[in-house]
Amino acid sequence: MGSQSGNIDGIALVYCEGAYNTTYGKTAHGLVRFTERYQVAGVIDSQYAGEDAGIILDGTPRGIPVYASITEAFDRLNGQRAPATHLVMGLAPDGGRLSEQARKDVLSALELGLNVDCGLHDFLTDDPEIAAAAERNGCIIRDIRKTPDRKDLRFFTGEIEEVKCLKLAVLGTDSAVGKRTTAWSIVTGIREAGFKAELIGTGQTTWMQGARYSLILDSIINDFIAGEIEHAIVSAWENERPDVIVIEGQGSLLNPAYPGGFEILAAGRPDYVILQHAPGRKDYDGFPGYRIHSLEQQIEAVEVVSGRKVMAITINHEHMNEEEIQPVCDRLAKETGLPTFDVLLQGSKVLVELIVPRIQGRQETP
Amino acid sequence: MGSQSGNIDGIALVYCEGAYNTTYGKTAHGLVRFTERYQVAGVIDSQYAGEDAGIILDGTPRGIPVYASITEAFDRLNGQRAPATHLVMGLAPDGGRLSEQARKDVLSALELGLNVDCGLHDFLTDDPEIAAAAERNGCIIRDIRKTPDRKDLRFFTGEIEEVKCLKLAVLGTDSAVGKRTTAWSIVTGIREAGFKAELIGTGQTTWMQGARYSLILDSIINDFIAGEIEHAIVSAWENERPDVIVIEGQGSLLNPAYPGGFEILAAGRPDYVILQHAPGRKDYDGFPGYRIHSLEQQIEAVEVVSGRKVMAITINHEHMNEEEIQPVCDRLAKETGLPTFDVLLQGSKVLVELIVPRIQGRQETP
Repeated sequence: MGSQSGNIDGIALVYCEGAYNTTYGKTAHGLVRFTERYQVAGVIDSQYAGEDAGIILDGTPRGIPVYASITEAFDRLNGQRAPATHLVMGLAPDGGRLSEQARKDVLSALELGLNVDCGLHDFLTDDPEIAAAAERNGCIIRDIRKTPDRKDLRFFTGEIEEVKCLKLAVLGTDSAVGKRTTAWSIVTGIREAGFKAELIGTGQTTWMQGARYSLILDSIINDFIAGEIEHAIVSAWENERPDVIVIEGQGSLLNPAYPGGFEILAAGRPDYVILQHAPGRKDYDGFPGYRIHSLEQQIEAVEVVSGRKVMAITINHEHMNEEEIQPVCDRLAKETGLPTFDVLLQGSKVLVELIVPRIQGRQETP
Repeated sequence: MGSQSGNIDGIALVYCEGAYNTTYGKTAHGLVRFTERYQVAGVIDSQYAGEDAGIILDGTPRGIPVYASITEAFDRLNGQRAPATHLVMGLAPDGGRLSEQARKDVLSALELGLNVDCGLHDFLTDDPEIAAAAERNGCIIRDIRKTPDRKDLRFFTGEIEEVKCLKLAVLGTDSAVGKRTTAWSIVTGIREAGFKAELIGTGQTTWMQGARYSLILDSIINDFIAGEIEHAIVSAWENERPDVIVIEGQGSLLNPAYPGGFEILAAGRPDYVILQHAPGRKDYDGFPGYRIHSLEQQIEAVEVVSGRKVMAITINHEHMNEEEIQPVCDRLAKETGLPTFDVLLQGSKVLVELIVPRIQGRQETP
């Protein structure tokens, strides 16, 4: 699923009817914050029509208007120099099902000639009416979560050993804890420090945000997970010769429902792990009663399983006041002996200063 | 993929042309040793025609003749009271591809009216000529490794907490190390000790051997692995109310290519782990140069990840002389502080004596 480097895929309307600024809008939020795959021309959610999508999200104006409907957005944008080319499904409901309202809106988008990219579990291409509308209007639908055919999947080979650059994995102590945002922040920070960095995306939102070497880990057939991770990393290395490869984690090692990250450690063979943690979270995401393991247990699990070190903790400050954040970072740093940052708040500059000597260390190795 | 309890599926010819008694015949070997799913009427491999399949395998006569061809076997068996009903693919070649010879033989089997069960990666039902032959002859083909549709798969729910019996996981320090054989041996031993035991099968051979609550872990879409494991265990508990559930592991925790067992620990939530190990093996199966982690590291990984104890080590005596086995068991027991057995050689009686008090302990819990 690696995309081509360089140009964007198109100009996107992000569909988020009824869910913008809620947990079911997280795909839309990711796209409003940042994407290299599309130019985002607007968000669709009648609740916030006329407002700036960035201001609603986090108070930062981003020049992305919210429209009441696809038709309204299309009409407005059609008058502009660069009309919209894609509708991107920004809804991320529990279970990933397509609502009846969203289905109707997808059909209208196709009638307007928009291509549709969708990461829901319900596949648009399996819906005969939607498939026919796409065909009739010459539109392309990409169901990015669709499980690839076995014939297009790869087994692990050991080629990963040929990758010579520094590899970092951003794992987390839970799902939905901010691994993706931290991973992008590190990649951006490394680039700003003058090095070449590539992000290996492992989730649908990261794909939508334009990570060039991506796979949708949740959708892969188990037998091929290690091989597909290896292949994405090896491709990034062979094509880009970056100084650093950052691998986005999925789930978390000790999560009862989404035990993830093992294949990234096993097949990706990172040199170091950066561990994203939400100190204010008590139970695993979506599973009340399953207490999140302590940070100490989580670090131990990473180090025992991978034989590699956790080099830093990055925190998600949910359920925390702003004045609590630095004291919590200080306390975690003391308890774990590891540098601890709030990358979302502070950026990745200080963390990247810790990474740079490790890049240079690799480069000096003969 | 849970089968019905009670009756067998049919009378089987096990196809293993050119590969019986080689590593590519391991599915056939499993079926000759033991299956509750079929009555095995014969093995097909022209190299050993006329011999007893059990004697070739391990010197134990099992009254299962080897035939030169499907036609020959069918003719002989057709004269008997219970004619063959199934051809079962006993070949397990690297990569799981169907050879041209095997394809032709599957077509002849269908022309003779045999149903075909197959666990290869190449799906018979995707081959138009094979599918047409099945249709024409009223035969059923089961591609047991085919990835189930998303709509038939389940997410983890936490229902596992309602399972009250003792749960044991048989994990391994590598793939192809004997987890399945040990798991069956433990289940049989527990039954002989007068308790009800169910095996949760996680591989194709275990399914073919008749484990009633099974899934083919390798074929599941990643998102659903934890949920499918949970569902198999919960179904076994609800339908059978066993005293013990034994869960067959897949891959191994620290394997670079097949990191497995995490989902079993996370979603299956076993009370104890039994760890199968081949002391004579140096590198991970199929990956020369990737040294197998020490038994100490492997035990630590299991215990850190699951928070549960390894209760015993079971060994695979490959690359060992018979007189080495007991001293090696004694040495490992001393090094790890854990009871260590060669279950394949000695049976599971002594190990089961360690399990029984744990069953009784659960039963006394209010």
